[in-house]
Formats: sequence, structure tokens, C-alpha cells
Amino acid sequence: MTKPPAAGRGARFAAAMDQAAAALNASTGFDRRLLRDDVRGSQAHARMLAAVGLISAADAEAIIAGLDRVAGEIERGERALDPGLEDVHMNVERRLTELIGAAGQRLHTARSRNDQVATDLRLYARAAAADLCTAIDRSRLALCRQARAHAATLIPGYTHLQRAQAVTLGHHFLAYCEMLARDRSRLVDAARRAGESPLGAGALAATGLPIDRARTAADLGFDRPTRNSLDAVSDRDFAAELTFACALVCVHLSRLGEELVLWSTTEFGFARLSEGYCSGSSLMPQKRNPDVAELLRAKPARVIGDVVALLTVAKGLPLSYNKDLQETQEPLYDAVETARMALAVVPGLIAGLEIDTARMNAAAADPALGATDLAEHLVRGGLPFRRAHEVVGQLVRRAEERGRSLRDLNAEDLKTTIAGMDELRALTPDALAAVLAPAAAVAARRVHGGPAPTAVLDQVAVLEAELAALGFEIGT
Amino acid sequence: MTKPPAAGRGARFAAAMDQAAAALNASTGFDRRLLRDDVRGSQAHARMLAAVGLISAADAEAIIAGLDRVAGEIERGERALDPGLEDVHMNVERRLTELIGAAGQRLHTARSRNDQVATDLRLYARAAAADLCTAIDRSRLALCRQARAHAATLIPGYTHLQRAQAVTLGHHFLAYCEMLARDRSRLVDAARRAGESPLGAGALAATGLPIDRARTAADLGFDRPTRNSLDAVSDRDFAAELTFACALVCVHLSRLGEELVLWSTTEFGFARLSEGYCSGSSLMPQKRNPDVAELLRAKPARVIGDVVALLTVAKGLPLSYNKDLQETQEPLYDAVETARMALAVVPGLIAGLEIDTARMNAAAADPALGATDLAEHLVRGGLPFRRAHEVVGQLVRRAEERGRSLRDLNAEDLKTTIAGMDELRALTPDALAAVLAPAAAVAARRVHGGPAPTAVLDQVAVLEAELAALGFEIGT
Amino acid sequence: MTKPPAAGRGARFAAAMDQAAAALNASTGFDRRLLRDDVRGSQAHARMLAAVGLISAADAEAIIAGLDRVAGEIERGERALDPGLEDVHMNVERRLTELIGAAGQRLHTARSRNDQVATDLRLYARAAAADLCTAIDRSRLALCRQARAHAATLIPGYTHLQRAQAVTLGHHFLAYCEMLARDRSRLVDAARRAGESPLGAGALAATGLPIDRARTAADLGFDRPTRNSLDAVSDRDFAAELTFACALVCVHLSRLGEELVLWSTTEFGFARLSEGYCSGSSLMPQKRNPDVAELLRAKPARVIGDVVALLTVAKGLPLSYNKDLQETQEPLYDAVETARMALAVVPGLIAGLEIDTARMNAAAADPALGATDLAEHLVRGGLPFRRAHEVVGQLVRRAEERGRSLRDLNAEDLKTTIAGMDELRALTPDALAAVLAPAAAVAARRVHGGPAPTAVLDQVAVLEAELAALGFEIGT
Amino acid sequence: MTKPPAAGRGARFAAAMDQAAAALNASTGFDRRLLRDDVRGSQAHARMLAAVGLISAADAEAIIAGLDRVAGEIERGERALDPGLEDVHMNVERRLTELIGAAGQRLHTARSRNDQVATDLRLYARAAAADLCTAIDRSRLALCRQARAHAATLIPGYTHLQRAQAVTLGHHFLAYCEMLARDRSRLVDAARRAGESPLGAGALAATGLPIDRARTAADLGFDRPTRNSLDAVSDRDFAAELTFACALVCVHLSRLGEELVLWSTTEFGFARLSEGYCSGSSLMPQKRNPDVAELLRAKPARVIGDVVALLTVAKGLPLSYNKDLQETQEPLYDAVETARMALAVVPGLIAGLEIDTARMNAAAADPALGATDLAEHLVRGGLPFRRAHEVVGQLVRRAEERGRSLRDLNAEDLKTTIAGMDELRALTPDALAAVLAPAAAVAARRVHGGPAPTAVLDQVAVLEAELAALGFEIGT
Repeated sequence: MTKPPAAGRGARFAAAMDQAAAALNASTGFDRRLLRDDVRGSQAHARMLAAVGLISAADAEAIIAGLDRVAGEIERGERALDPGLEDVHMNVERRLTELIGAAGQRLHTARSRNDQVATDLRLYARAAAADLCTAIDRSRLALCRQARAHAATLIPGYTHLQRAQAVTLGHHFLAYCEMLARDRSRLVDAARRAGESPLGAGALAATGLPIDRARTAADLGFDRPTRNSLDAVSDRDFAAELTFACALVCVHLSRLGEELVLWSTTEFGFARLSEGYCSGSSLMPQKRNPDVAELLRAKPARVIGDVVALLTVAKGLPLSYNKDLQETQEPLYDAVETARMALAVVPGLIAGLEIDTARMNAAAADPALGATDLAEHLVRGGLPFRRAHEVVGQLVRRAEERGRSLRDLNAEDLKTTIAGMDELRALTPDALAAVLAPAAAVAARRVHGGPAPTAVLDQVAVLEAELAALGFEIGT
Repeated sequence: MTKPPAAGRGARFAAAMDQAAAALNASTGFDRRLLRDDVRGSQAHARMLAAVGLISAADAEAIIAGLDRVAGEIERGERALDPGLEDVHMNVERRLTELIGAAGQRLHTARSRNDQVATDLRLYARAAAADLCTAIDRSRLALCRQARAHAATLIPGYTHLQRAQAVTLGHHFLAYCEMLARDRSRLVDAARRAGESPLGAGALAATGLPIDRARTAADLGFDRPTRNSLDAVSDRDFAAELTFACALVCVHLSRLGEELVLWSTTEFGFARLSEGYCSGSSLMPQKRNPDVAELLRAKPARVIGDVVALLTVAKGLPLSYNKDLQETQEPLYDAVETARMALAVVPGLIAGLEIDTARMNAAAADPALGATDLAEHLVRGGLPFRRAHEVVGQLVRRAEERGRSLRDLNAEDLKTTIAGMDELRALTPDALAAVLAPAAAVAARRVHGGPAPTAVLDQVAVLEAELAALGFEIGT
Repeated sequence: MTKPPAAGRGARFAAAMDQAAAALNASTGFDRRLLRDDVRGSQAHARMLAAVGLISAADAEAIIAGLDRVAGEIERGERALDPGLEDVHMNVERRLTELIGAAGQRLHTARSRNDQVATDLRLYARAAAADLCTAIDRSRLALCRQARAHAATLIPGYTHLQRAQAVTLGHHFLAYCEMLARDRSRLVDAARRAGESPLGAGALAATGLPIDRARTAADLGFDRPTRNSLDAVSDRDFAAELTFACALVCVHLSRLGEELVLWSTTEFGFARLSEGYCSGSSLMPQKRNPDVAELLRAKPARVIGDVVALLTVAKGLPLSYNKDLQETQEPLYDAVETARMALAVVPGLIAGLEIDTARMNAAAADPALGATDLAEHLVRGGLPFRRAHEVVGQLVRRAEERGRSLRDLNAEDLKTTIAGMDELRALTPDALAAVLAPAAAVAARRVHGGPAPTAVLDQVAVLEAELAALGFEIGT
Repeated sequence: MTKPPAAGRGARFAAAMDQAAAALNASTGFDRRLLRDDVRGSQAHARMLAAVGLISAADAEAIIAGLDRVAGEIERGERALDPGLEDVHMNVERRLTELIGAAGQRLHTARSRNDQVATDLRLYARAAAADLCTAIDRSRLALCRQARAHAATLIPGYTHLQRAQAVTLGHHFLAYCEMLARDRSRLVDAARRAGESPLGAGALAATGLPIDRARTAADLGFDRPTRNSLDAVSDRDFAAELTFACALVCVHLSRLGEELVLWSTTEFGFARLSEGYCSGSSLMPQKRNPDVAELLRAKPARVIGDVVALLTVAKGLPLSYNKDLQETQEPLYDAVETARMALAVVPGLIAGLEIDTARMNAAAADPALGATDLAEHLVRGGLPFRRAHEVVGQLVRRAEERGRSLRDLNAEDLKTTIAGMDELRALTPDALAAVLAPAAAVAARRVHGGPAPTAVLDQVAVLEAELAALGFEIGT
């Protein structure tokens, strides 16, 4: 018996790994994120091994204490991970054995790196999902506060980025709360589906040793053990699903980012990001650039790429574990960290928004926004909607040809404009003015989910109750 | 008042659409898939309008009957969709009005194409998810039957496509049942989250008319109306989520496809696809190619592309509806139809598999597969696992250097081979033979989720109960 | 000898294909796009077979004439492609044999569908690349004309969508010409790399028959035959590369689309799309939505998805041909057709743009745009740039705190504002006004590639010469 | 004048950046890869500024020397990049100014970070492309050597992973040389298109100062300056194109990886990776896993994701520079580094392959591989090919029904088997044996690009000449 072989590599090898191959192979550059989960998983495993009698209680205690010491050393930077040991798992086990001797050599009983890494990754994914839920809640809270503050602030609603109908700014903020609520729900589902413990699946074929999988599952907070060992070591669905959920989070924030970029333009001028969220220019001294909003807009790109990477790696892989699966880690980490970093800026960004309500109100008073209200007015008078749509459309065109907006039409203009349009005979400048008044028009759209201040406050109250139940302080 | 303007386009336009622009703009090439859902949504809308008094009961009846007639005409090919009317919605409304006159002009009251198409798409998505669940169940049934039939058929289990440990073919089939069960669960979640009715959100700002959103929601089988009109018309999360779920379905089937391709090779020779799933060659007369398995392997590529398309379209879109969202339809349809088509071949493919159990069993008897069992045997004797791993590794290497497999070692060989390895002193050829016997080794791995025939039959029974509860006949 | 077997399937099969399998397998739904290229390739093949004596001259003539007849029948809709024959190739050959008998049975000599479809696809790709180049040139011409017309029209240049420095509209249009020139160059490269003929590679292993590959290559306009038969039948790089080039075309047009959407807003108001490129709303009578610009913005999403599909299909495929490659066709067609459709609207869209030069000029006169010019003015006076940047930045902030823009500062204001900033001592309101005058500032940036009217006209002349050399009429 | 403002941020800001925003905003985590290119670009800029008289010769000298010192400090780890300064560019400039004072403040004259980073990235991309070409050449050399060594080694050629026709191993290796040659060609094209210098484009609008763009372009090895400043600062086509080229490199290597995984299986047994490219198992002592081959197979997934990220970031961005473009750096770096790392293992992997030629030859002797040769034999005798295909197909089926391979048929069998098949009347067992002899069959397929040893050696010679001209030693 000569020198100890490289951990993980085993005694069946005479030669060391080629250097370029080792560089391609090592995961220590990114898998240290699993350190705490790896230790936690190993401690649960050791407790179980002792409980079923595969190792002694004393060995289990030594292992558990030793693992804490190893984790501490690495976290405090006292020991670096050695890429020559391939991954965090082998680094931890090797150091453990240095510290506690033979007991350390018993830890890997009835376990393989395959079920070990699958367990670690699920622990990571579940914790990440929970963190992201909290980050989402903080963002929802900030949006909700602004929604209450601006329940009655008018702003043009847009479709096709064309002014469409007046809405309220509070309603606008609540739209993002809806998106984030769906995101949260997807994260919860993803965490639930990740809630099965692979420990005990071994390399692929479970083990003939008398382990207790239910015990480690419960110890680690899983709902149950996985049901098929071949699947358990090769399943990364949970990573793909969490990454996809992160992608949608980022897509939603990118919409917010785009809107903040637009609102910050001189042309819109609806709002400015506070200085803490802007950058300047190295050349142009006057610039105040909404960098943070632009980065929110950009971030989904990489997370969509992460989704692609994860799904593409798994495509066409035969059972069970293949080394390809190592490539599922980085996209997952990137997606989680990107979503986390993006969500982290939202509360401050939203709370600190410098909103120009005067400018918003003025824009919302654009009479073009009342055309639909006018058509609905005619419908109330009995005109079929499709006909009302046509006559108002003609009215808009004729007014435009005269260089007027709907509101500018005086009695004389109106008379000329509607000449020959029998359905509009009854329309007076006063009636037109009443219909086109934005505040009244918005207040009338108080149906469930509508933009009226009353409807907005209803939704705010529902959301506040949900957030309060989650333990958040609602007050501004 | 002159000629009727193009539906959807409205009277505010003097000019027609440019021809190249119209080609880019029209959705009639693909949105006819929404025909039935569109009609169903409009009928529910009409019933509601009558119930709240916005139209007469007679108009509602005319609309409902007229819509059925329109749908029938189009479905029977008596009328083609006119791309000049942009989409299926305008085609239906225009034809309805031709058939029933003014009542048809009242249908679009308090509604926009924006909430209409969002409703149609959700109806489509929910029905598609339900269909896919059924297709998944049919596939699980076929796999489950083979799992029962082959609960004790031995086959090498692989990691890294290297023979690793013997498992059972039934266990192997059950691994796919696990993947499909997760897929089903994701589809159910996606359908649940799609279960809110956008009807009444209008173009973006709801409506001032006194509609009853809860009524249409219930009528169409939704759980509730959406809570924010700006979000409701621009949300396509449900499409992205369903498409992602389809991508994972296809990824799982691609793994099956890859394995069937491998098993069909002369080299593996574990199974052949029945002729109905193979193609020949235009040049090589002897070929029997597993085309269907290859296509299963290939299909995720396009669905991953669909996921990309959907997420990328939504990225950075300001509120609320933007025409870009038209581009969310085709990827959704493609993903659903691809997953459906792929799942459709699975039951017959699996049931008709020509399995060569003799060849599988012979491969499973490869003594290299017993190395882990040997290490576990030493662990039972008290050796720390990491040490057992080392000595078995050395044993393998020494045997290999002698050109022998573990099982071929006679007493003399063994004695030489283990010279100096104290831990193996007690090892006899007979003990070695017993440890390396594959059937016994597999039977010992009967822990929950393990490959032992008993464990496989346990899982089969659970799955059969689930499928029976869903109404499937379990018998082969 | 009994009934003729399904073409392509061959006599080694007793059973027909399963129906669901056949649906998955058939490519007749999309590969009819290859009809003309298939016929052309087969005609060249037949000519070569006759030239080397493998078939008679009479047979070759019959084949060539027969193929034209088959293509005509299918193109005129007289015959539909039969999915039961799998693909367009087998449909053509089968019908040919019906028409001309035994000669038709000799066509497939020394050829396989594998080299045949690779040839067809390359012919398709090369023709598509050439078409797209022409479409790009038409777009460049339209942009170039507008650039000449607006060589001196001022418009704010933006970074971060914040007004940055004044530029010219002509310069802005020319930026798109640069993007399109790169696209064209990439298409040319892609077509060049696709310029090798796979014909003669057979199924994978070439042929023992004495064919003349150089002859068919030349006949079909290829530069040379491919150099390796295993690669030739499994290479779809050309499809991926062309699809990628299409993706970048669409990305560039999406930037144009985004800008047109912005310019069309009430807030920017710089331009309107002509009516032929807009749509209305089914609900809101006043709407004039820039649908075509939005679709240009959206289209890259699907083409990026196509790139993903193509690369992902090819990943991990063993040599040589695998059925998976069938999945490379649809993404290629979709990318080409999407790019073609998007480019088709550009000339009319650009030519018909209703530009509000007054509004552009007014915006370009925003004094904030002159801050950099002011800093450069100070640099000319000897101040280090970084210092000049600082003092102008402070000046902007102080003016902003006083609610003034730089230009509004009168002598008194200026004196107060620059108090303590020694570097600005020499600055007078008149000097400030001169520096901030946008037309002069822009005219000074006449360096190569700059926005000055003179620099724009230089670039326009270069582009006009290039387009004229390509045969385009330059005049508006 | 108070404390110096954050570089890049400028004096117009009163407040510092929010911490979460700064974390999102900083690029120092990845852009240090640009350090040397940034310094090089700045030195060229300083030389030019002095040449045109915008700074003094002494300042230029101080800048140039100072920049070298800064780069050295950072490279040697004496100074860390400060994320508070946002990026590598500001870190370098700030430190330069600390070291050399006012001269440092003059460096950024007539330049912006926008044209600066565009220049740096192009320098990076061009150097990366050149490096990758060399790495490709090394891989081609290793493949070429094996091709020469195995020009006559028989191996089954596969389509659909079914044995199809015998080929030579040399031919098989050359297929990869073809793929890599295309990759190289794409990299060269990408580098060529990246060969324009953005320096002088300023922030977006060039500069009014009298710079000499041609001079810096030439100094930095570019072919010419860019032609449009708005395009120059916002163009990242070169990054997307290079990333796409890397994706195809990785796709090709993934095919090689898949084949090596297959060849390494017990079932194929055609080759083993040398130990330096394999890993063991933490559980299973006997395992020798082809990890490196699997990682080659997996790597395209992330690079396809990088392509998606790059294209998606650029989609829909208005002119000119937007902060979103910061997100183009990491995907580019990842693609380049992944391709580089993957290519780095190929030469050793290929050179060290333990090929089992006996096993390959035996497999190539499978008589099923001769069916096409038999059909071609009949064509030589005058039978139309389609007919020959049918009769051989029937022969295969009949032989299979009798449990025989084609070669096993003795005279009696053959007579029975071909009963009623008139076209085969002349076929004798001897003729059959001659046709089915694999070496002769392969030797006959000596057409250009075919697998015959002579054809392989022809291609090897061409490739060797190309590599020799590039300066490589050809001998093994």
C-alpha cells in the first residue's frame, strides 16, 4: 500500500489527471456555494448511520463536530478548496478525515457523490426559493405602498405605447404586484416539487446496507425520500424549474425597468430615479442615466440563457448520472443570484422614485384618452358598440383633419364635424366635456380589477392583509 | 357614412394596410386554433351582457346561435379565414354580423380584443394542459405494465454510460414514470395558475359599463376573474409556463429516445423497436432505423427554442398590451403540439418493444458490476467505507493488469492479487462469487426507491393505484 | 414479388408504420419548400450519371423532363404530397417513376436521401441568402435616401435614452445602414461556406460507382464538392450559420422597431408611421397603433429560438446522419421567412415615415445637450478634460438647483453660478450661447463617422456608390 | 470645490449610489479581462492626442509609462479593482492620475467610456479569435495524425447509430477536421468583421476636437475606423458572432465527446480514454468514467445559452449606448473561455486514445454492412437501383427470418432464399463473399471525399500541407 490515491479518483487509477482535463473537470470554482448544505447533509447522514448501527455513536459525533470545523475553516478562508480534489464534497471529506481520522473514512458509507450532490443541490434550491419569496414580498410591499399613495393619481394607460385610456398610477403599480404574486406562487411550487430527499439512492442503485431514508429526509426538512434511485441521481428538473421561475421574475422586472427608463426620459418626464440608482457619464457632464432600470431590463437575457443551458444539458442523457450534470450547477446559481440581485434593488428604487404627478395628470387629461368613454356613452344611449366605435373613429379623424382634439371642439366645430352622423345628433359640447373628464371616467371603471381609485384601494387592502400575515409592517 | 371600414381597423383610418405590412400583421395563419375557445368565450360574454341588461335576451340568443353557425362554417371549411380581417376574432365577429345583423354589432360591448384573446389563450392553455396530462397517464400506464412484467429482469445500470451496478429493467422503466409524474404535476400547476378570467379587463382599463366578471369567469370554468386589468391584457406567463412544462416533458422523452437508440444498436442489442416505429434507408437495403426514438431525442430542441421565444418576446415590454404579444401564440402552439405528438407515440412504442432479456441478463452478469457490492461486503465486516473503496479499487486494477475480471480469479490468482492487502485476507473465491452474483446483489437493494424486484413491485402497485383512480384499466 | 413497398421504407419491412409514429416522422408538412431545389439537384445528378455512363442518355432525358413535369404538377396543386411517402424526395421519385417507368428507378443510383437532402438544403440556403441580401439592399436604399434628405435635420442623440448630444437624423439612419451592411456581409460569408456540394457522399460512405462529383457540383453552382462523406451528410452548420445571420438581421430591425415605437408616442412625437403600417383598436376608436414597428421589435425572439433549436439538435449527435437532423429544417425556414418578411416592410415603412422635423429640431435645441461641447470648449482653452468634466457637471447641478437650464442663465445668474469655479471665469453668456447652439456643435463633429452634415453626406455618397454598383437606382 | 467625485459618476451627483444598486452596476467582477486591452487602447489614444497636438508629448509619455505601471500593479495583485469605481476603465484612469497627476486628467480627452469599452472588447475579441484558431489547429493536427495512422483501419460507419457501411477510422477522424476547418473559417470572418476601430466615436456623437481616428485604428491593428458613431458605441455584433462561432466549435466537440463516450462503453469497446482523461467513482471502486468526453458533450449547452443572452440583450435597444450592453461581456467571456478550455483537452485526448483496432475491424466485418455494396453490384450488372434496393432488402429480410446473416448463407441457403427473385439468379456464394468483404468494399469507395484509404491519405496530405504552412510540425 503506497500513497493515498486522489480522493474521488480511487485506487484503480495509476496516473494523475491531465492538467487541461483537470481544469475542465473541477467544480471547486463554483460549488463552494454548496458547502453549508453539504455539511448539513453529511451530518444528517451520519446521525442516520449511527441510528441504524452502521457506525458508532462516537463516530457520528466526531463526524458532526468535525464537519462544523471544516466548514468554518473554509468559510473563514483559512483553507482554500483544492481543485485537485475535484469538488467541494471531496475537499470536505478529505479534510474531515485529516481532522478526525478513521471515523471520517466511515462517513461515505452507503452514499455516493451522486446522491450527495443531488441532495445538496435540492437543499440549495429550496433555500434559494424561500429567499426569493422574501425578496419578492419586500418588492411587493414597496409597490403596494406606492399604490396606496397614488390610488388616485391619474396617468395615461398605454397600449402599443400609444395613449389609450386614463388609469391610476396605483393601478399601474398593482399590475407589477400581480406579476410578482405569480412568481412567488411558482417559486413555492418549485420548492415543493424539490422536496424529496435523494439520499440513499447511492450512485444509481441504492444500497444493500440497511439505511433509513425516511429519517434523513425528515432530518433535512424534505417531505419524503425520492421513489426511484436511477431517477433520483439524474434528476435536475428542480434546477430547471427554479431557473425558469427566476427567468420570469427577471422578465417582469425588465418590464418595470423599461417603464422607468421611459418615464425618466425628458420626453415622458413622469418620474426620475433617485440619484442612488443613477450613473453619470465619463464624457457628458450633464448625464443622469437610469442605469439600474436598464440593468433590470437587461438581466432576463442571461437568465433565459441559463434556462437554455439547463434544459439543453439534460436533453438526450441516458440514465442515470452522467458528468454532463455538473453543468447544471452554474446556470442555477447564476439565475438565483441574478434574480436576487435584481429584486434587491426594487424596494429602494420604487420607494425613492421622484414622481412628477403634475406631469402625469396633465398627460392623462389628453382628450384622445376619452374616445372609448365616448363610445361607451353612446352605447348607454342604445347604439350598438361596433357602430359607436365607428362613429367615434370618424369623429376623431375629422377632428384631426381640422387640427383639433376632441375637447377643443366648440359647439360650432362639433356641429360641422358631426354633420351627417345621425347617431351623434344628441352630442353637445357639455356632454362631450363631461365624458372626456379623466377623473370621472377613471372613477367609473370601478369593476373588479379596474383602475378606479376605489378598486385600487380594494386590491391594496387585500395585498396588505396578505403581507401583514407574512409578518411585514405595512405602514409607509 | 360610406363603406364599412375594415373590422378592427376602425373608421379613423383612410388608407388600407400596406401589403407587406398586412402579411407581417395577420395572425389568421395560426390563430384558427382559437376558434372554438373564441366562440365559447363570446357566448359566455353575450349571456352575461344579457344578464346585466346591456343587451336583450333575444340578441344574446341570436349571438349564441349565430356563433355556433360561424364556427361550424369555418370548421367544415365552408369559409376560410380572411387575413384582411387580421385575426380569427374579427373574422368571427364580421361573419356573425353578416348572419344576424345589429345584434352582432352589440357583441363587442364592454370588451376588447385584448381581453378577448387573453381569455381565448387561457382556455386553450387549460384544455391543452388537461390533454397532455391524459397523454402522460397513457405513457405511464405503458411503462408501468412493462415495469411489472420486467420487475425481475436484470440489466446493467449505468453511470457515465459505464456499467455501474446491476439493476432491474422494471426499475429502469419506473424512473421514467417518476419524470412523467413531475411533468404532470407541473402541468396541473400551470393550468391552475392560468385559471383566472381576463374577460372584463377591456383593452387595458376595464370598462365603465356594469358588467359581471364573476359570471363569465364561472361560465368558462375559471376559478376567478383576474385582479388587475393592465396586467390581465399583457400577461402571457401562463403560456411561458405551459411551454416550459412541455419542454421538460420533451427533455424526459428525449432521454428515453436516446436509450432506445442505444439499446437498438448492434453493440448493445438490448431491444429493438417494433417495425411500426422504424424506417428504412433509401440507399442501404438492410437498414432498420429507430427514427421514432431519434425524433423523441430531437424534439426538445424546438421546444427549448419556443421557451426562448416566449420569454424573449415578453422581456422589456412596457404595460400594457403591445402587438409583440401576438408572437406568443405560435411558440405555445408548437410546444403543445410537439409534446402531444411525442407523447402519442410512447404507449405503442413501449408496449411493442422487442426486449432481448437474455442479452440484458448476460450483460448484468458482468462481474465489474459487483465491485460496490464487494466494498459493502467489507464494510459489513467492519472496514471503513473509504478504505473498502480503496482496496477494491486496487483489486480491480491488479485483476485488470492480469487480464482477468473479478469473477475469473481462482484461489491462486486471488491469493496473489490480494497479497499485501490485509483487509482482504478473509476473502475467498466462494465469498467473492456469492457477492458478485447479480440477482442476489440486486435483491439486497430493496430499500425504498431501490432496484430490487420487491421494491419495484411496491412502486408499481402505488402507480397502478394512482392510474386506476384516474380511470385507467391496469391489466396488460 | 408482391405489392411495391413504401418508397424509402424498403422491402426489408413487413409492417407499415404506426400512425402516431408516421405523424411524428413525416416531413411533407414543411419540406415542399425544397421541391424546386430537389428537382434541380436530381436533374444535375441524372446528367452526371449519363455522362459517366451509369445510365443512358435517353434515361437522363426522360428523368429531366419527367422531373419538370412532377414539379409542375405539385406546384400547380394538381398533386398533393403524400405524407405516407415521408418526404418531398420520395414523393418526387415515386411520381417520376409512375410517369416514366424504369428510367425513374435508375435516378437514385449512387445517391442516398442523405446526400440528396443535404444538397437540397444547401441550394435552398444559398438562394435564401442571396434573396436576403437583395432585401437588405432595398432597405439600405430607403434608409440612404432618408439620410440624404435629412443630412442636416437635427435630432437629440441619446444614450441610456437620456438626451446626450445633438446629432443629425441622417446620421441616425446611417447607423442602421451600418448594421445592415454587416448583416449582408455575414450572409455572403454563410453562402460561401455553404458552397460545397454533398452530392456523392451517399448515405455516409460515398459510393463505389464511378461518379463525377465535380461535375454535379459545378452544374449546381457550388464551388467544389465536400471533402468528407461522413461530415457531408451530417453537417448542418450552414443552416445554423444562416439562421444566426437572420437572427442578427432581426435584432437590428428590432432596434429600429423600438425607436419607431418611441418616436410615434405622443411624448416623443418625432414621427408617425404612415397609415398603411398602423392598426386600430377594436375598442378604442382613436387608436393608431404602430403594429408593424412592434412586430419588428418582437420578431427576433422567434429567430433566437430558431438558433437555439438548430444548435441544440446538433449537439451530441454521433456521426453520421441521424434522424434528428430532420428537425433542422423548420427552424431554418422560419428564420429565413421571418427575416424576409421583416425586411420586406422596411423600404415602405422608412420611405413613408411622417417625420416632424420641427419637433426634432426643438428637442435638439435642449441646452443640456451642449454640456459636452462646453467641456470640449474648456479643453480647447487648456483645461485637462477630466477637470473640465467636473466643472461643467457642477455647473449643471447648480443651474438645476436654481431651476434653470444652461442656456437660460443670464449674465447675473452665470456669475453667481460659477462663483468659486476659477476655470469658468472667462465664460460669458455669449460664449455659452455660441457653444450651446446645436447646429454649430453638430457641424463641428465632422470627423470620419461623425454626425456633421458634411460627414453624413460623405457616408451617403459611399453607400450610394455601393448600391449603384449593385444595380439600384439611387434617386428618391 | 470639495472632495473629488466618484470617477465616472461626475460632479452633477450629490449622493452616492445605493449599495444594492452598486452591486448590480459594477463590472469589476469580470471586466478585468480587458485590463491589457484597455491599457493598449489608452496608450494608442495618448500617442494620437500628442500627434495632433491635443496634449503634449511629455504628457503622452507620462501617460504611456504610467499605464504600464498601473497594469503591472493590478496584474501582480498589488492593487485590487475597486467596485466603487464601477469598472476597470475608471480604476485604471483613477490610479493613473494618482501616479502622474494632471497628465492623467488629460487622457480622456475626446473619448468616452462608450467608445473605449467598444474598442477594448474588439481587441479582446480579435485576440480571442486568433487564440481559438491556434487551438483548433492543434486539435486538427492531433486528428490528422490519427487519420494518417488509421487510414486503413476499418470501422463500421453508422447512420441512425445503426451499422450502415464500413468506413475507415482515418476517414472518421477527418470528418472532425472538416468541422473544425469550418469553425476556423468562421472565427477568421468574425475577427475580420471586428476589425474596425470605434475610438473617436465618443459617447455617441464623435467629437469636435481634431482627432486622427485612422492613426489609432492603425496603431491598434484595426483595418479602419468605424463609419458611424451611433452604431459604433452600441454595436456588439462582433461579440454575438464570436460567441456563435464558439457555440459551433463546442457543438462539434460535443459530437466527438458523444462518440468517445459510446466507444468507451463495454458494449462498443472500440476505444478507451487514457487515464488522464477519466475519473473514478466515490462509491464504485471499479469505475473508469470518461468524464472529459462527457464534459465535451455538455459544454455547448452553456454556450448556446450565451448566444441567447447576447442576442436577447441587444434586441429592441434604441440607439445608441444603453447600460444593457454591459451584459454582453460575460456571455462573450464565457463562450471564449469554454471553447478554449474544451479545445485544450482535444490534442491529448485524441493522441492518447487507446484504440482497439481488432474490435473495430471485427465489427466492420458485420455482413449487414455489405448490403449496399451488393445493391451496387447488381446496378453494375444493369439492374435499376431502386429495384436492386428492393431485392437486397428482401434478401436481408428472408435471411433474417432464417436466422442468418448475408454472409452465412451457403449455396443451398442462397438458392432457397433467392427463389423467385430473378434478378439474383446470377448471385453465387463466392460473388456474395467477394462483395461483402469489407476492406475491398471500402477501398472501392475512393471517390473524392470517400472513405477509401487512398482517399483518406489524399485528404491527410492536403491538411498536412495546410498545417505545415501554418508552422506546425506534422510528424507524430
